[in-house]
Amino acid sequence: MPIYHAPVRDMQFILHDVLKVSQTGLPGYDDLAPDFTEAVLDAAGKLAQDVLTPLNAVGDRQGCTLENGIVRTPYGFDTAFAAMKDGGWTALDCDPEYGGQGMPYIMGLATGEMFVSANMAFNMYQGLTHGAYSAIHAHGTPEQKAMYLPKMVSCDWTGTMNLTEPHCGTDLGLLRTRAEPQDDGSYLITGQKIFISAGDHDLAENVIHLVLAKAPGGGEGTRGISLFIVPKYLVNADGSLGDRNGVSVGNIEHKMGIHGNSTCVMNYDAARGWLLGDLHKGMRAMFTMMNEARLGVGLQGYAVAVPAYQNAVAYAKDRLQGRAVTGVENPDGPADPLIVHPDIRRSLMDQKSFLEGARMLAFWAAHLIDRAHGGDADADGLVGLLTPVIKGFLTDKGFDTAVLAQQIYGGHGYIEEQGMSQFVRDARITMIYEGANGVQALDLVGRKLATDGGKHVMAFFDMVKAFCKEHGDGPLAGDFIEPLKAASKDLQAAAMFFMQNGMKNPNAALSGSYDFMHLFGHTALGLMWARMAVAAQAALDGGAADTDFLNTKLATGRYYMARQLPMTRTHLARIETGADPVMALPADQF
Amino acid sequence: MPIYHAPVRDMQFILHDVLKVSQTGLPGYDDLAPDFTEAVLDAAGKLAQDVLTPLNAVGDRQGCTLENGIVRTPYGFDTAFAAMKDGGWTALDCDPEYGGQGMPYIMGLATGEMFVSANMAFNMYQGLTHGAYSAIHAHGTPEQKAMYLPKMVSCDWTGTMNLTEPHCGTDLGLLRTRAEPQDDGSYLITGQKIFISAGDHDLAENVIHLVLAKAPGGGEGTRGISLFIVPKYLVNADGSLGDRNGVSVGNIEHKMGIHGNSTCVMNYDAARGWLLGDLHKGMRAMFTMMNEARLGVGLQGYAVAVPAYQNAVAYAKDRLQGRAVTGVENPDGPADPLIVHPDIRRSLMDQKSFLEGARMLAFWAAHLIDRAHGGDADADGLVGLLTPVIKGFLTDKGFDTAVLAQQIYGGHGYIEEQGMSQFVRDARITMIYEGANGVQALDLVGRKLATDGGKHVMAFFDMVKAFCKEHGDGPLAGDFIEPLKAASKDLQAAAMFFMQNGMKNPNAALSGSYDFMHLFGHTALGLMWARMAVAAQAALDGGAADTDFLNTKLATGRYYMARQLPMTRTHLARIETGADPVMALPADQF
Repeated sequence: MPIYHAPVRDMQFILHDVLKVSQTGLPGYDDLAPDFTEAVLDAAGKLAQDVLTPLNAVGDRQGCTLENGIVRTPYGFDTAFAAMKDGGWTALDCDPEYGGQGMPYIMGLATGEMFVSANMAFNMYQGLTHGAYSAIHAHGTPEQKAMYLPKMVSCDWTGTMNLTEPHCGTDLGLLRTRAEPQDDGSYLITGQKIFISAGDHDLAENVIHLVLAKAPGGGEGTRGISLFIVPKYLVNADGSLGDRNGVSVGNIEHKMGIHGNSTCVMNYDAARGWLLGDLHKGMRAMFTMMNEARLGVGLQGYAVAVPAYQNAVAYAKDRLQGRAVTGVENPDGPADPLIVHPDIRRSLMDQKSFLEGARMLAFWAAHLIDRAHGGDADADGLVGLLTPVIKGFLTDKGFDTAVLAQQIYGGHGYIEEQGMSQFVRDARITMIYEGANGVQALDLVGRKLATDGGKHVMAFFDMVKAFCKEHGDGPLAGDFIEPLKAASKDLQAAAMFFMQNGMKNPNAALSGSYDFMHLFGHTALGLMWARMAVAAQAALDGGAADTDFLNTKLATGRYYMARQLPMTRTHLARIETGADPVMALPADQF
Repeated sequence: MPIYHAPVRDMQFILHDVLKVSQTGLPGYDDLAPDFTEAVLDAAGKLAQDVLTPLNAVGDRQGCTLENGIVRTPYGFDTAFAAMKDGGWTALDCDPEYGGQGMPYIMGLATGEMFVSANMAFNMYQGLTHGAYSAIHAHGTPEQKAMYLPKMVSCDWTGTMNLTEPHCGTDLGLLRTRAEPQDDGSYLITGQKIFISAGDHDLAENVIHLVLAKAPGGGEGTRGISLFIVPKYLVNADGSLGDRNGVSVGNIEHKMGIHGNSTCVMNYDAARGWLLGDLHKGMRAMFTMMNEARLGVGLQGYAVAVPAYQNAVAYAKDRLQGRAVTGVENPDGPADPLIVHPDIRRSLMDQKSFLEGARMLAFWAAHLIDRAHGGDADADGLVGLLTPVIKGFLTDKGFDTAVLAQQIYGGHGYIEEQGMSQFVRDARITMIYEGANGVQALDLVGRKLATDGGKHVMAFFDMVKAFCKEHGDGPLAGDFIEPLKAASKDLQAAAMFFMQNGMKNPNAALSGSYDFMHLFGHTALGLMWARMAVAAQAALDGGAADTDFLNTKLATGRYYMARQLPMTRTHLARIETGADPVMALPADQF
């Protein structure tokens, strides 16, 4: 069975050596002293390792079943869900007014990484609830908040997002679910929604669906869309559960992975719903959930690959096969362990250097969100720019990383019992849901680059420039600063190409959108590694005791800069070919 | 259910416009007039489309089962196997002396591509038989050939390769299966083999296992290994089947994909076997099978992605979502088809340009094998050099292509019923078996580059150089010849780096082996596209009628040259970092 070790030391390094969270003066950050965060991370890691990890394969093998309209989750999920609730993990960064613990978002993200690594399908039940909580918290009336939030913070009730219909996913303007206004101010919702994660299950007393639907008078396309709260069981005025609402599970999807999560077809048949936020402004309210969900999926993308990498390392140290080309290293054994071979190292370093860079990027984004919550508009703009990069790049590379880890096992990696296949199959969905990665690239190039007059991308370039200036003469200049400068230059050249060509022909920019997303991702990870290197070097210079950890951090960063950042050159070359090669063929010639 | 269209027109273009097979004067090639090959390909395509394709999902869903020691294949596989046999497809390129049709290998490869595309797991039953046939044909005694080959050519009996044991795959020197010599010249084989594809099943009367084992007196490591023929049922002198041999199925593996093929644990318990080839020279005989198998797996790598691409195209034309950024293209519909969007085009062009280039490379390699069979030692050396590139590069990129195709479907691609997941899961094994791709890279850089004093890689460079010189002033210079020259220059620079640094430190070369394999793959596909472009341009200049097909070929090639070949620069940059970043960490720091 696959192992998992919670990466507490790595997270502590990011929180305290790089971000120096307890010195920022942000609301809630004063509490984040190293001892405190370590205790929280240790406790979350213990739950992840001891309770959630053993259930990961169980969930994959058993999946969810639909019995007489009731969805059954895999064996043991109920007990584990109770442990999550009892430990207060579902409430960690929620509003204390509704029973939350009020910690900063960055702590929710850090513990969330562990839960995803341990059992991604399981963690979705509370992850989606958190998204629905956020939407109601931001857009609900005082009565709605009072009615739903305490139960959702505790996960006595869970939440869902209902966007997709059989004929539309990305293009929500096409949706057909209707909302008929009633005299009492409620609506009757009728339609079918598909791909509803955690759509129904036996882990909670009630399920609170947030449903996009069209109410009369809103006009065509997305303008006519509103967002509704549709509970599985109606809630009485005293908070007790009333009648079953007109919503039912049509089917459970048979998926490539995340079998432990129930992905449902939901049928709404004059189900009672209540407007959340403004009429015909549902897309705006939904984006509150969606932005959080996109960061969460970016987190999933790399987090699911963390245990894949850890198991690949264990296998590479254990499996004896062949001899080191530079001389026998395990003379008492029949062969040397796989890890002596350069190509195994190449693979493990690709994995390790990506995962640690990805973690830094996700934590930084969470930190920016905490700044934004504190009123920092620049941080809000920057994290908006980074969101499609985090979602698209981290999930693509997370999947690649899981595939690399599986490959270390040779033929054994293809056998389901080893568990490496599950990491790959689970990782695959992260590239698809919450906006397929091509849609993220479109959002980045077609929208986010130009937001507020291009202010946020300029701020990113300025940040890189200032960082390079500050550290350009130091000991990290050659290994870190120069490659970062080169990557940033490629990214700027690509942005310039879009500006010069995109106005005349939008296809010239959009043909390069996917490459731009990856170019941005590499540059961002280059910046993250340079920041980690500066922090590690400072700790070494300051006489820190754990020199092995810090030197390993520097060597891993050097690998990323030397062997991953050259990809920016290829992405720029692809972008600069423009629309012609991409759009040359008539559709009937494919 | 997924569709499949046999790409007869594309294959005819390669055979007759590019390779001009009927003008080569090779043995058996005189028959390969366009009408004849078209008739063969049409018939194979019909079998693939009508019989094998519908069973692909059936095989995936049902898998194989072990009942009281007997392996059952999925519903319908027996009828389809009979159709394969009755049509003579298993005998296409086999020796007429044993009932084969005696066609060149290239025709076996071409029809094989179709069968793999239609149903990869199914086609393995006859594919492995062909490998075992080749080994017995090359190394068997006249009596062995007479006893086994006619039944294997017809697939009344199927064959297997037995190399891997639980504790060793790549490092066969560690294997523990023993062969005890008997007074009658036979051996008793005892040991356990794992991952035996088509190890047992209900499609044939007998299964002929080729088994690597150690006979006394051979010394340590691979030197002591011999190859044995071990039939499931002993064969009487008159060719009838006798007693059951001491070989049994211990288990069927539960795999990520290729569920329709029975992957068995085989237990040999004093099973009767007969030496194939020379005692203690079993590795040599096994390599006859393995080289063929590696090309076959390279073929699988891209062939399984062909229907994935075709289905992605169909979906992209059918699914209405969003509007073209340059203006509405489907005014009568609620939205435009996906294929109007530049990022969808980018993905489809990546897929199409890889698949057609890969096909050309596989056909060219098959053509070189036919030349080698005719006594051409240079062709033999060149295909030996190309074999690890074909196996490693085409399977890595084939998998990537299947993932790209699945992505076009959005969330629907993750649902098993759509069939796109199966292509991805099936494709995944091609990167692993017959030598994991890291082992292919090691074979390429550690062995093949230096074979015969580096003669074959020099011949490849000379071939590219001569081609560029011949066409460097023509109409294809800018789009094809210049990018090919640049890629070839990068490949030569990488080889030079290995020569200058590998002697001092073998790790400096081996740290770049995987990148070199991909660099070589891109350069080879660049050459293939340049050759196809020359042929297409010549046909256009000669007034060929199907200008759409030929212009599409040119545009697809331009895409590959402009947007894929720039990868060679990144691979070279990675290679030139040498061993330091890769080997920097002590093993305990992973």
